[in-house]
Amino acid sequence: MSLLGLDVGTTGCKAVVFDTEGKVLSAAYREYPLLHPQPGWIELDMNLVLEKIKEGIREVSSQVKKDPIKALSISAQGEAFVPLDRKGNLLSNGPVSFDIRGESFVQWWEKALGKERIMKITGMPLHFMFSLSKIMWLKENCPHIYGKTWKFLCCEDLLIYKLGLPPTIDYSLASRTMAFDILKKKWSEEILSRADIDKTLLPEVVPSGTIVGEIPQRIANDLSFPSKVIVVTGGHDQSCGALGAGVREEGMAVEATGTVDCIASIFKEPYLNKRMLENNFACYPHTVPQFYITIVFNFTGGSLLKWFRDTLGKEEKEKAKKTGKDVYSVLIDKATSLPSPLYLLPHFTATGTPYMDPNSSGAILGLSLNTSKAELIKAVLEGISFEMKYNLSLLEETGIPVYELRAIGGGAKSRKWLQLKADLYGKKMVSLKVSEAPSLGAAILAGVAIGEYSSIEEAVKATVKIKEVFYPQEEKTRIYEEKFQIYKDIYPTLRSLNHRIRDAAVASSAEKLR
Amino acid sequence: MSLLGLDVGTTGCKAVVFDTEGKVLSAAYREYPLLHPQPGWIELDMNLVLEKIKEGIREVSSQVKKDPIKALSISAQGEAFVPLDRKGNLLSNGPVSFDIRGESFVQWWEKALGKERIMKITGMPLHFMFSLSKIMWLKENCPHIYGKTWKFLCCEDLLIYKLGLPPTIDYSLASRTMAFDILKKKWSEEILSRADIDKTLLPEVVPSGTIVGEIPQRIANDLSFPSKVIVVTGGHDQSCGALGAGVREEGMAVEATGTVDCIASIFKEPYLNKRMLENNFACYPHTVPQFYITIVFNFTGGSLLKWFRDTLGKEEKEKAKKTGKDVYSVLIDKATSLPSPLYLLPHFTATGTPYMDPNSSGAILGLSLNTSKAELIKAVLEGISFEMKYNLSLLEETGIPVYELRAIGGGAKSRKWLQLKADLYGKKMVSLKVSEAPSLGAAILAGVAIGEYSSIEEAVKATVKIKEVFYPQEEKTRIYEEKFQIYKDIYPTLRSLNHRIRDAAVASSAEKLR
Repeated sequence: MSLLGLDVGTTGCKAVVFDTEGKVLSAAYREYPLLHPQPGWIELDMNLVLEKIKEGIREVSSQVKKDPIKALSISAQGEAFVPLDRKGNLLSNGPVSFDIRGESFVQWWEKALGKERIMKITGMPLHFMFSLSKIMWLKENCPHIYGKTWKFLCCEDLLIYKLGLPPTIDYSLASRTMAFDILKKKWSEEILSRADIDKTLLPEVVPSGTIVGEIPQRIANDLSFPSKVIVVTGGHDQSCGALGAGVREEGMAVEATGTVDCIASIFKEPYLNKRMLENNFACYPHTVPQFYITIVFNFTGGSLLKWFRDTLGKEEKEKAKKTGKDVYSVLIDKATSLPSPLYLLPHFTATGTPYMDPNSSGAILGLSLNTSKAELIKAVLEGISFEMKYNLSLLEETGIPVYELRAIGGGAKSRKWLQLKADLYGKKMVSLKVSEAPSLGAAILAGVAIGEYSSIEEAVKATVKIKEVFYPQEEKTRIYEEKFQIYKDIYPTLRSLNHRIRDAAVASSAEKLR
Repeated sequence: MSLLGLDVGTTGCKAVVFDTEGKVLSAAYREYPLLHPQPGWIELDMNLVLEKIKEGIREVSSQVKKDPIKALSISAQGEAFVPLDRKGNLLSNGPVSFDIRGESFVQWWEKALGKERIMKITGMPLHFMFSLSKIMWLKENCPHIYGKTWKFLCCEDLLIYKLGLPPTIDYSLASRTMAFDILKKKWSEEILSRADIDKTLLPEVVPSGTIVGEIPQRIANDLSFPSKVIVVTGGHDQSCGALGAGVREEGMAVEATGTVDCIASIFKEPYLNKRMLENNFACYPHTVPQFYITIVFNFTGGSLLKWFRDTLGKEEKEKAKKTGKDVYSVLIDKATSLPSPLYLLPHFTATGTPYMDPNSSGAILGLSLNTSKAELIKAVLEGISFEMKYNLSLLEETGIPVYELRAIGGGAKSRKWLQLKADLYGKKMVSLKVSEAPSLGAAILAGVAIGEYSSIEEAVKATVKIKEVFYPQEEKTRIYEEKFQIYKDIYPTLRSLNHRIRDAAVASSAEKLR
C-alpha cells in the first residue's frame, strides 16, 4: 500500500506517491501559468490547476497499481482562493498571494480594528496578501460575482470538494485568510463581522490530519484511483514542508530555497507580541498539533540566481550546454570559495520579512576594478543568505532561536551553497534524501490519520532520512559575522534613496505609457 | 616644414608631427610599464621612458624628411619626477602621481602651513600626489640618494635636458610640484624653506612657449633630426590638451576620456577661494598666457568600461572578434538608448575630485529582476558622466561655468557616448578631427615660438578642426537632470558604509597575507 501527497504551488503542482518508509514510488509534475490581466493582478485559472492536478494523479496512480494508494492529503499554497456557485462552478480566476487587490483594505483595517488586534486574533501581520481583503475587494468591485457565490475556497478545500467531499480546510491554511481565530481555532466572528462577510461563505475548518471521507467511486474511476482512497486534511505548504523535512521540535526549522527563499520555524506557545508584528512575522497553527509555526521569507531566492543566469550568464549557459551540467551548478561552482568582498542587497523585487517593503530595490556595494565575476556570483549567493540570516537573528531576538535548518527545494541540491549557508548562518544545515518535503509532509498526515503510523513522531522517524550534514566552519563564520554587521545597515542606509529611485522609475514608466 | 609635439604619459608616449594646418604627417606610440616595487609605490623607469621617446622620435622624424621638423615642444604628465646627479645620471626610478609616498607629509603640511595658505601660494589643494612631498620623503628615507642629487626633474625638463639643453620647466608643469608660486610665477621661497629643500635642486622656470635652444648636432644625429631643431617649453598634458582642442576662452573646457576621465577648464582671474579648496580644485597657469586652468577628474573613466569588458563582457568580446568591430563599440551599441533605471557610483578605485576619497567604493543601485545587461552598460556610461556632471556643477557654483566641451581621448571615438554626454550634461559636446590634442597643443606652442604663427589664437584657428557637434536633446536632458538629483545623494548616503566596507576588505586581505 502507499500514500499520496499532493502539493499545489503557484506555478505548478506535484503528485508524489510514497511507500511507508518514505521512498518515492512515483512522482508527477505539471506547470500552469500565472496570469496578469491587469497591472498588479496575478491570478491562476483554477479550472486549469484542477485539470493539471488530475493529470498528475492519473499518472502516478496508474504507476503504483501494485502498491495501491490508500490515502491522500494536500499541501497547498496559502492565500489563493476562488469563488464557487451552488453548482460548484468556479466564478472567476483565483488571485494568488502577491495579487495586490487587497491593498486598499490595509489602511481600512488599520482604522477599523488596528493591526495589533488583528495580529492578536489571527496571528497575521496586516498585509494585502491575505485572502480576506481580496474577498472584500471582490464584494465591492464585482457584486455580480459576490452575489452568486456559495463558497470561497482555498486550494486545499477546493481540491477536497472536487474529489467529491465536503469542502474542508485545515487550521494552518485557514490562518492564511486572516479570518481565522488561531487561539479559539475557528473562523473569527469579530473579524468577519467587521469585514461584513458571512461565515457560511467559508468552508468548514478542522485540524490537519483529519479524515474527511472516501473518494466516491465515480471520481476514483476518473482518476485511476483504487476504491476507497481516504482523503485527509493537509495544510499550508510551508507547514507540510517543515513536517516532511523532519522538523519536529523547537529550535529546528526548514529552509525552502525555490524561486522564493523561505524559512519556517516551529514552537509550542503562540507568539503574538509586538516584536512579531514589527517584523511582519506571522504565527499560526502548524500541521502538527500542539505546535505553532512562523515563516520568514525573501522573494529573491532562486529568482535572483535565475536573473544572473539570464542577464550575465551567457558564458555559463554555454558551458552547461557543452558539459551537460546544470547551469546553476556551473554558476555556483564558479563562485569564489572565500567570502566575497562585495555586498548584495537582494531586494530585486518587493522585500519579504521583516521589511515587507515594495519600494526597496537591489544594490551591489563594494565594487572595485579588481572585482571578478566569481566574486559577483558569490555576492548573489551571500546576499540571499544574509537576508535570511537577518531574519533568523530577529526570530532569535523574538524568542524563537533556530539551531538547525533542514534544506529543501532547488537550492538544496547544491552542496557548495549548503556549506556556504552553514558558514554564513553559523548553524547546522541538513540535506535530505527526499527533496519533495511538502508532499511527504502531506503523505505523513494521511498515513497517521489512517493508522498506518501510531503517531506523527513515529511516521517522521520511519520516512524522513538525512542525506548529509553541513557544519559551520569557524573561521568563515567569523568573517561572515563581521560582514553581517555591515550587511544589516545596508537597507536602513539605502531605504530613502531606494524609495526615491523607485518613485522616479514609476514616474518614468508612466510617462512612457502616455 | 613641420612641428613635433611630444606627449609623455604615465603608460606610454606619443610623438606626432603636424604640418602647419594641423594635419598629422606622422605619429608613433610607445608603451612602458608602471612598476609596483612595494604596496603603494608606483614608479616609472625613466631611462626606459627616455629610450621609448627617442624610438618614437626616430620613427616619425625619418618619415617626414620632405617636411623637416623645425621645432618641438612637450606635453607631460604632472607630478612625476626623478633625481639626477651632476653627470646627468638618473639616481632612482620616478614615482608617478598616484604613488603614495607623500602621504605622511599631508598631515605635516597641514600643521606646518595649513592647506589654505598652501592653496593661496601654489594653487594646489593639499594632497600626497604632488612632487614636493615625495621629494621630502626621499630626503628623509633615502639620504644617500638625496645627498647625490643635482636636480629633481619632471618629465618636460628631464627631456629638454636629455636633448642637450639646460633643464627648463614651464609654469603649468612646475605648479604640479606644489612648490611654485602661481601668482609671483617663481619657485616659492616660503614653501621651499618650510620643506627645507634647496631651490637650486629645481630647474629653471619659464612660461610655456619659451624657446630653450637648438638641439646640438650630436644629439640631432642620434635622433634622425634635421639640424637646428628648436626646443620650446610645453606644459602639463591637461593644459596642452585644452590648447590642442581649441579651448580658447572662458566657458570652454576639454574633456579627455581615457583610462581616467578629466575635464580642464580655463579662466582669466586666478580662483583661490575656499570653495576651490573644499572641492579639491587646483588653479594654476595655463599654457596660454593670461589664462589659468583647473582640472576635475575621476579615475574610473575608460578603466570602468574596461572592467565591464573583462569581467562581464565575454559575449561582446566574441561578437567584436567575429564582426571585426571594436569591443567598446559593441558594448556601447548594446546600451539602452533610454536613460537607465539604474544608478552607478563609479568609485571603483579612489575617487577624483571633489571628494578625493581613497576609501569609497563602487555601487550599483536600483537593480530589479527586470534589469537587463543593456541597462547595466548604460548605467556604467551614465555613472562616469554623472560624476563629471557633479564636478561641472561645483565648478559652476565656484564661478567657473562651462558651456561647451571639446572631447578628446579614446572616449571621443564613440558618437553614441558623446550624444549621451551632451544629453546628460545639458551642454554642447564637440568632437575634433585630430584626437591627439596634447601633442597638437605642444606643436602649437612650438609653432608660435618660432614665429610660424603670429599668435596662439591664429595657430588654433589654423590647426584645430571641428569634426561634429552634439547638442543636448531637451527631453533626455530633463530626465537626466532628475536622475542627477538622486545621483548627487548617493556618495554622501553611502560614504560611511563604504568606509566600513573598505576597512573590512583591508583587514581581510591583511589576514590572508599573514
